[in-house]
Amino acid sequence: MAAITGWISANGGNVLHLDQHVDPVTDHFFIRVEWHLGGFSIEKNAVERRFTADVGAPLDLECSIRFASARPRMALFVSKFGHCLWDILARCESSEWNVEVPLIISNHPDFEGAAQSFGIPFHVIPITAKTKAEQERKELELLAEHNVEFVVLCRYMQILSADFAAQYPNRIINIHHSFLPAFAGVKPYHRALERGVKLIGATAHYVTSDLDEGPIIAQETARVSHRDAVQDMVRRGRDLEKIVLSRAIFLHLNSQVIVHGNRTVVFT
Amino acid sequence: MAAITGWISANGGNVLHLDQHVDPVTDHFFIRVEWHLGGFSIEKNAVERRFTADVGAPLDLECSIRFASARPRMALFVSKFGHCLWDILARCESSEWNVEVPLIISNHPDFEGAAQSFGIPFHVIPITAKTKAEQERKELELLAEHNVEFVVLCRYMQILSADFAAQYPNRIINIHHSFLPAFAGVKPYHRALERGVKLIGATAHYVTSDLDEGPIIAQETARVSHRDAVQDMVRRGRDLEKIVLSRAIFLHLNSQVIVHGNRTVVFT
Amino acid sequence: MAAITGWISANGGNVLHLDQHVDPVTDHFFIRVEWHLGGFSIEKNAVERRFTADVGAPLDLECSIRFASARPRMALFVSKFGHCLWDILARCESSEWNVEVPLIISNHPDFEGAAQSFGIPFHVIPITAKTKAEQERKELELLAEHNVEFVVLCRYMQILSADFAAQYPNRIINIHHSFLPAFAGVKPYHRALERGVKLIGATAHYVTSDLDEGPIIAQETARVSHRDAVQDMVRRGRDLEKIVLSRAIFLHLNSQVIVHGNRTVVFT
Amino acid sequence: MAAITGWISANGGNVLHLDQHVDPVTDHFFIRVEWHLGGFSIEKNAVERRFTADVGAPLDLECSIRFASARPRMALFVSKFGHCLWDILARCESSEWNVEVPLIISNHPDFEGAAQSFGIPFHVIPITAKTKAEQERKELELLAEHNVEFVVLCRYMQILSADFAAQYPNRIINIHHSFLPAFAGVKPYHRALERGVKLIGATAHYVTSDLDEGPIIAQETARVSHRDAVQDMVRRGRDLEKIVLSRAIFLHLNSQVIVHGNRTVVFT
Repeated sequence: MAAITGWISANGGNVLHLDQHVDPVTDHFFIRVEWHLGGFSIEKNAVERRFTADVGAPLDLECSIRFASARPRMALFVSKFGHCLWDILARCESSEWNVEVPLIISNHPDFEGAAQSFGIPFHVIPITAKTKAEQERKELELLAEHNVEFVVLCRYMQILSADFAAQYPNRIINIHHSFLPAFAGVKPYHRALERGVKLIGATAHYVTSDLDEGPIIAQETARVSHRDAVQDMVRRGRDLEKIVLSRAIFLHLNSQVIVHGNRTVVFT
Repeated sequence: MAAITGWISANGGNVLHLDQHVDPVTDHFFIRVEWHLGGFSIEKNAVERRFTADVGAPLDLECSIRFASARPRMALFVSKFGHCLWDILARCESSEWNVEVPLIISNHPDFEGAAQSFGIPFHVIPITAKTKAEQERKELELLAEHNVEFVVLCRYMQILSADFAAQYPNRIINIHHSFLPAFAGVKPYHRALERGVKLIGATAHYVTSDLDEGPIIAQETARVSHRDAVQDMVRRGRDLEKIVLSRAIFLHLNSQVIVHGNRTVVFT
Repeated sequence: MAAITGWISANGGNVLHLDQHVDPVTDHFFIRVEWHLGGFSIEKNAVERRFTADVGAPLDLECSIRFASARPRMALFVSKFGHCLWDILARCESSEWNVEVPLIISNHPDFEGAAQSFGIPFHVIPITAKTKAEQERKELELLAEHNVEFVVLCRYMQILSADFAAQYPNRIINIHHSFLPAFAGVKPYHRALERGVKLIGATAHYVTSDLDEGPIIAQETARVSHRDAVQDMVRRGRDLEKIVLSRAIFLHLNSQVIVHGNRTVVFT
Repeated sequence: MAAITGWISANGGNVLHLDQHVDPVTDHFFIRVEWHLGGFSIEKNAVERRFTADVGAPLDLECSIRFASARPRMALFVSKFGHCLWDILARCESSEWNVEVPLIISNHPDFEGAAQSFGIPFHVIPITAKTKAEQERKELELLAEHNVEFVVLCRYMQILSADFAAQYPNRIINIHHSFLPAFAGVKPYHRALERGVKLIGATAHYVTSDLDEGPIIAQETARVSHRDAVQDMVRRGRDLEKIVLSRAIFLHLNSQVIVHGNRTVVFT
């Protein structure tokens, strides 16, 4: 920590915010520092190289430098439920986030009109068990072509192959409509009703090759009662899902999430 | 409903509160009515018989009548974690609930002093795999002897046998230190940490022969972060557990819980 | 209650849901009944008249009958913050609610494009202290012309005159960005920061002639910390505001809110 | 920050946890560091002096050093509501906190028995408008005599004089049964009912000469509905109050709270 903050101040930087964490079990050390580049003696495009040489390599740190001015490119995948998609697009439109959405991919044409009204290219890529490998190849080509940095699955009802997930490690965010690990897999609200739980939940996580088992970024629950049928849970769940997914995107965009094994350190 | 409210008003009763529910799947009808007995034309000890004869039997209702003046007898089981026990005893002492605690049973002597300071008989009944059947027999005898109506497991670290559970159907309340069905069974906080969840939970439920599978009465969650080690989750969890367990006891005492299959209707 | 449920069943109706409440202070009785019209012996357009004649008038009830098939007409007022507007329009587009939005009124042109993309007429009606009375007259004319049943102020930054409010009693819903009665009036987030509160809130209420004093429909809070500057509160608050406002609209649309004096009975 | 962490590591200390904050308005810098004394080259009783000389004075820091092994002495004040008192005593008894309770002071004798069962001296000091000054003098003498470090008002229904409050700046914690600044002063639940709010709250804060205006440490809210009469709010509020007050005590005991003006920085 002294090395990092020393290096920043020695080069004329001013620390705005610092947060750190030592994992008491593995003894790993995590740190996130934000500093002003105004008056910084190192040029922007040399910062990462110089930091790595001066501090990162000697201390054997795994490090990553991002600029607040950057505007990451985010692709959205959607199927037939639009609440998360709408919520995200509205936030982009309102400049709530500093992000670019170069394309939307769907296995259904339902939200073509919505995409158009926001001026975002919309690609319909239907998927069947037979065509899955080929269609995923097309999707990956589109992502590469548009320089996509990370992907958000907005209630996308297809399971990505392990190969696909491996292309964007810790860069695909999914929203699952339950409080994981409860009700992983299909039809969580039906199973919640059957079990008679008094709270439903939503979980945003990074996608790995294990379905619904990736590192959790954000979770939230909401109260339900015996009065709530499955369709009521679905309705209440929509609000949870969109808030939790958007919170996860916000944290990801601000580089507030560090993945370590199958868990996350979320500096808030 | 018309039959029930009609019968009450025909006999001079005044409905204070009524709540009803129709299960949309099974079409079962549930109703809970509170009424004043002031000026009621039927004597207290004849109310149940008359209601059953006039309304319950003709309509084939399963019904139960309780008087707000009754003071049910509740037994407490505890092991080595005292937070729920203390919380319950303090509520009893403060007359927060209309309940009698005729005895406390434990497999350890730790809370003998606490019990004494509240003037409640404390029975130490240690249990090993070998002695379990015999010791449970002793416990059941004690419960019968003290006319116990329902049992609360205050973080009691023994699994009751199916036979024991069957003696008090929907009359044994347990607190499990997770958001069920996530982390049923042992060491939920360890597993919560390992999975990297962002919320922990507590669940109060009726005990059945299936461990942690009984009808849920109340649940709550609380936020945790990467900073929380297992002992921090344990600490945060204590507050959840005692609040959720006491909420369940309150609902049970007020006959606000109706068990139907493996789920509950909780009229609040 | 017996009279109402008796009348429904005598005419072949089937009660789906009933909720009632007796105010313990004023002794007022409130009831909300939902029933199926399938097989009902009274024609739809005669239901209100017949109910009033048979039950309402004899018992001196204040009653109102609404049909689930009705599609109320809701006008939206907005200024320069779009999060609530977007959230509402997305819900309408997704048919989450059974509602018509015949027009949007704003004192600024900012959301003309958004309105257009949803195919909704957008009226810019700028207001100054001088032109207020005249401009409100125009607004009222537009509402009348479009047969608007209720109005939603989506962070509309103008205070409606008492005259305007009186035209739509309990039919104008506002969202205030604080936990009322804390921080009524201007700049609630600034004042929240100054006071050092640990939670911020949002309140949806009916508009009356007293600013921020109308009957509360829904409220919610969210945690903040010393790290949150005003702009962070604004950001966190947006999510609260849109969720709380939309919850209030949903409750209003389902006739789940009964206003009594300056308070609401919300049957959920 | 570099100076502080440098000093610790230069003297053989190992930082366990560090948290910092820069107030964006006043530009004040706050930092809290926990480090291990195992292998530390400075003797325990010289740490504060040496730190001040080496780091604090040169950098003009206001600093305070506490040892985790210390066992602060906490006095409890109570009147006639016991839920917070019981909750605190049970936590002390369970060694949940590292704290000593040398005495309890009350203006009523109600909890003498409770105090006795925990072996804690109980002082009844009744207060009238006339005797207030004199009785407070007695209380201050008792606090001094018992080397009390901080005071917790467990629903103590007397307003401390400005003089009293000034003796223990940021060392008297009060629990107010509302979400401050809403319903400061008397009868908050009555006023909450009257206003028709949908949430009630509790606020733990340091006592200053301005009633209910001191720096807020912790707050929480809970849902209420039209069904909740004042006595229901009181009942629900009890759980909020005891949880929030105990959270504040925990934070205070761990030196996680820094008061700055009328606000707190709470490092969690």
